[in-house]
Amino acid sequence: MNVTEVQEFLDTEFPQMNHGGKTFSIESVRPRGAVVRMQYHDRHIRPGGTISGPSMMALADYAMYVALLAGLGPVALAVTTNLSINFLRKPGPRDMLADCEVMKLGSRLAVGEVRLTSEGSDEIVAHVVCTYAIPPEK
Amino acid sequence: MNVTEVQEFLDTEFPQMNHGGKTFSIESVRPRGAVVRMQYHDRHIRPGGTISGPSMMALADYAMYVALLAGLGPVALAVTTNLSINFLRKPGPRDMLADCEVMKLGSRLAVGEVRLTSEGSDEIVAHVVCTYAIPPEK
Amino acid sequence: MNVTEVQEFLDTEFPQMNHGGKTFSIESVRPRGAVVRMQYHDRHIRPGGTISGPSMMALADYAMYVALLAGLGPVALAVTTNLSINFLRKPGPRDMLADCEVMKLGSRLAVGEVRLTSEGSDEIVAHVVCTYAIPPEK
Amino acid sequence: MNVTEVQEFLDTEFPQMNHGGKTFSIESVRPRGAVVRMQYHDRHIRPGGTISGPSMMALADYAMYVALLAGLGPVALAVTTNLSINFLRKPGPRDMLADCEVMKLGSRLAVGEVRLTSEGSDEIVAHVVCTYAIPPEK
Repeated sequence: MNVTEVQEFLDTEFPQMNHGGKTFSIESVRPRGAVVRMQYHDRHIRPGGTISGPSMMALADYAMYVALLAGLGPVALAVTTNLSINFLRKPGPRDMLADCEVMKLGSRLAVGEVRLTSEGSDEIVAHVVCTYAIPPEK
Repeated sequence: MNVTEVQEFLDTEFPQMNHGGKTFSIESVRPRGAVVRMQYHDRHIRPGGTISGPSMMALADYAMYVALLAGLGPVALAVTTNLSINFLRKPGPRDMLADCEVMKLGSRLAVGEVRLTSEGSDEIVAHVVCTYAIPPEK
Repeated sequence: MNVTEVQEFLDTEFPQMNHGGKTFSIESVRPRGAVVRMQYHDRHIRPGGTISGPSMMALADYAMYVALLAGLGPVALAVTTNLSINFLRKPGPRDMLADCEVMKLGSRLAVGEVRLTSEGSDEIVAHVVCTYAIPPEK
Repeated sequence: MNVTEVQEFLDTEFPQMNHGGKTFSIESVRPRGAVVRMQYHDRHIRPGGTISGPSMMALADYAMYVALLAGLGPVALAVTTNLSINFLRKPGPRDMLADCEVMKLGSRLAVGEVRLTSEGSDEIVAHVVCTYAIPPEK
């Protein structure tokens, strides 16, 4: 699946991502990887202007799912089984980008790494490792 | 701090937790532990009735912060540095409870374990380990 | 499988655990849990008398495997896919005990929590969460 | 510190790494990173020729410590507080290399990522994220 196909699949199958305004979008996909964007939006902001931890987790999870869809085709039932996040720096008051690399794509499990940065900076704001269970083929 | 003091501190210092309707509340605190509740509310629900991963993460983080406040007194600057969550079962269409045990409360780091269950069941829906950095005393 | 059966299975199938002297042994098994012991032995000690991190990881992994064998019967091919360890306190110069609780025992994944203590103390020295992949039934 | 200085510091301060034969060595250091090697040695091998999980954990921990020493100078008291490892593929019957990137080097915590590969292959055998506590300056 290319960017357009993945985006259409997600908008159709997971309309809740866009609840309250569409803030997540796909920047690019590549073999075993993807870059996605989260708009700097009230919904994700804590007082003081920082971005909430759960929003960063949602962004990382989204990046991994996009990378899996691009690699596997539409697998609506893949589910996150583990997500571990390290918060490294305060994010800037800007859009965040998440770059996911799928490190393993097995028949039952996929494991990916996601690096979250504030747009315009290379410093890692948060680092995520996550595991998805791939549903058995019918 | 007791339940009322912790709740008042949080409602004053972190009003954003209640943005869109107050859905998080404290059930009880104990030495090195706390139980908190998340209402089954549209804001946390995905199509099909399941509760979103980021909402569960927010709940666990909240439980840990309540337990720290109860143990340390008001430390508004404690920040999460790591959170690792395992999703074990599908949650029921009900309130969720999070029971946090602080396993270590050092001068610089606190580490806690949080078990998330659907109200009325003992089965663990999600299991979280999280680390908070404690700000230096002035 | 009971304690004797699990111990015999492990001694036969995994003799390398006993390489250089038998230092790991099973204390007890229970439904979805087990307690195992690691002797305070030169092989596990760092200068100053502390116990090495890799030895604690090996102990936790062993506890989880014992608990799985007790619950599932002999599944020699179950493999660890993730292990996350938090080092909370310096262990004492004594045997260590590991108490494992299997939180999920699914058809494909098992997730457990392990608490490591120094004998004679209730304080958690290290806390482990680990995931095993269960091989498909033939 | 350069490679020679770090190696001499480790051989003097942590002779136990070489207990039973020197199997860990430094390949290179760079700003905020290091590559280290673990020889394919009986001590690290399980029946069937695979490398033990605890040995991979020891290798990753060593890589992170080397990278910290290269960046900070001799800090003998830095201690691992968390280590999370994902086992992705079976390692080959060869030396393993660990490439560590220090993602954050704060005044109190350092967080690094380590990728373990079998010599001659780019596939990641195991992926580690670890956190070190940096002792306060006197």
